[in-house]
Amino acid sequence: MTDLTLALARKIIDEGFVKSAELGLKPLAIAVLDAAGQLKAFARQDAPALLRADIAIGKAYGALAVGLGSRALNRMAIERPHFVQGLESISGGKIVPVIGGVLIKTAEERIVGAVGVSGDLSENDEAVAIAGIEAAGLSADPGM
Amino acid sequence: MTDLTLALARKIIDEGFVKSAELGLKPLAIAVLDAAGQLKAFARQDAPALLRADIAIGKAYGALAVGLGSRALNRMAIERPHFVQGLESISGGKIVPVIGGVLIKTAEERIVGAVGVSGDLSENDEAVAIAGIEAAGLSADPGM
Amino acid sequence: MTDLTLALARKIIDEGFVKSAELGLKPLAIAVLDAAGQLKAFARQDAPALLRADIAIGKAYGALAVGLGSRALNRMAIERPHFVQGLESISGGKIVPVIGGVLIKTAEERIVGAVGVSGDLSENDEAVAIAGIEAAGLSADPGM
Amino acid sequence: MTDLTLALARKIIDEGFVKSAELGLKPLAIAVLDAAGQLKAFARQDAPALLRADIAIGKAYGALAVGLGSRALNRMAIERPHFVQGLESISGGKIVPVIGGVLIKTAEERIVGAVGVSGDLSENDEAVAIAGIEAAGLSADPGM
Repeated sequence: MTDLTLALARKIIDEGFVKSAELGLKPLAIAVLDAAGQLKAFARQDAPALLRADIAIGKAYGALAVGLGSRALNRMAIERPHFVQGLESISGGKIVPVIGGVLIKTAEERIVGAVGVSGDLSENDEAVAIAGIEAAGLSADPGM
Repeated sequence: MTDLTLALARKIIDEGFVKSAELGLKPLAIAVLDAAGQLKAFARQDAPALLRADIAIGKAYGALAVGLGSRALNRMAIERPHFVQGLESISGGKIVPVIGGVLIKTAEERIVGAVGVSGDLSENDEAVAIAGIEAAGLSADPGM
Repeated sequence: MTDLTLALARKIIDEGFVKSAELGLKPLAIAVLDAAGQLKAFARQDAPALLRADIAIGKAYGALAVGLGSRALNRMAIERPHFVQGLESISGGKIVPVIGGVLIKTAEERIVGAVGVSGDLSENDEAVAIAGIEAAGLSADPGM
Repeated sequence: MTDLTLALARKIIDEGFVKSAELGLKPLAIAVLDAAGQLKAFARQDAPALLRADIAIGKAYGALAVGLGSRALNRMAIERPHFVQGLESISGGKIVPVIGGVLIKTAEERIVGAVGVSGDLSENDEAVAIAGIEAAGLSADPGM
């Protein structure tokens, strides 16, 4: 179902942490899901917030759920909250519709997975996801 | 996992009730959770509201979920309702994002648990949580 | 709805811990629920198992759910597993159908709550619940 | 909350994969949870089974839920299925009670997390978890 190898997924995470260190961000959780919405790789830096992992996974899952980076989902949640609430219901409560869930695409625009980042401001989380994806030689789609 | 002993948790509750009596508040429920989000001690004064316990626990759990006193969660719920709804979904419906969930920290700023209080006005609930934590010799972080 | 005051609920817990110390049991969690199935008081001694609180509460809740001590529920779960699975479903997954959930009754056989204990062998958990209830001057019904 | 750093969690996973390669096992998923039951690190080798990640996480979570390696939970599920079904219910369906969830302990027997492995025979999954934990200088408790 996917070309997203474990080696690539781990490279995305490692390069994401490099970017985070450059920006001096707070401890982050980075999740990489494959195109089927299943967790492929994950790492969480030391931080006390209990739901950090679930938030990171939920951003990536939301992006895959609608085939759009979660920046689009964040906007939909403001403009049409009932739609996003419906999405959350049918997903069994797995979606976090905020900025920081970025689609991973091939050069041919095929979606092969998504990255979700949580721990700092949403825009910073998103910057880390994009940096990780691009450093792994793939294309990042954060939504618009 | 935690330095929050049962003796400390019970002292927080007892001192919270002392504060509540001083302020002449309504019957309260006070919940103390450890850093893993698990209930450590709980007591509920006589009151007819069925969900009093769940509300107190949900305030404390919400604070631990994001690593911030629930005053911050209350503000987020107003400014970015879709984010807090997402949190509620991924937590399995365990979060009550209102004032009255206060982090318990050590002198070194390490989170060792949270207190949730329910039964009176939110600000009064919070005052009770803070008084209990401080009377037990720990540091209270209600969020900002 | 209940005559189970907080003072009585706390006495049940404290006397339960006295019994546990006499028997040399492992760290326990003791939950006291009122007749409406709502948590009244709770205390958990230091132990690493994450779901200890939920198990103790689930034993007491199960007893109240069928109006029988959880020893009866444990037997039903063996003899008619589909019935107990149905109970768990309609309860929203709140029942733990094993020995250690004991009804609290008045001298007139009125149910005013239930005690759930978790942490040692089920029979020992039950002995602690019974000891706590009786030391508080109430009648204990563990089911048959 | 825990001494289980990200560096240690990743070492457990990497050393687990080394062991798996030595044994010639099928593609595996390895999850490392901290003592609060929260995901710390995860990696999944290429395999088509959709729930591989959830199974690995569920084995580790089950071990932490009862404070025993999941080999004990596996035996309980055979001897007292209604107890383990109750555990699954109150956990919100997060427990997979089979062999392959191994507690991570310090030299002082303190639980700092758990490893869950899924993808091959349960006994092989468990061997990988143990090898990873021990190679990281920690103590493995698979339950009995």
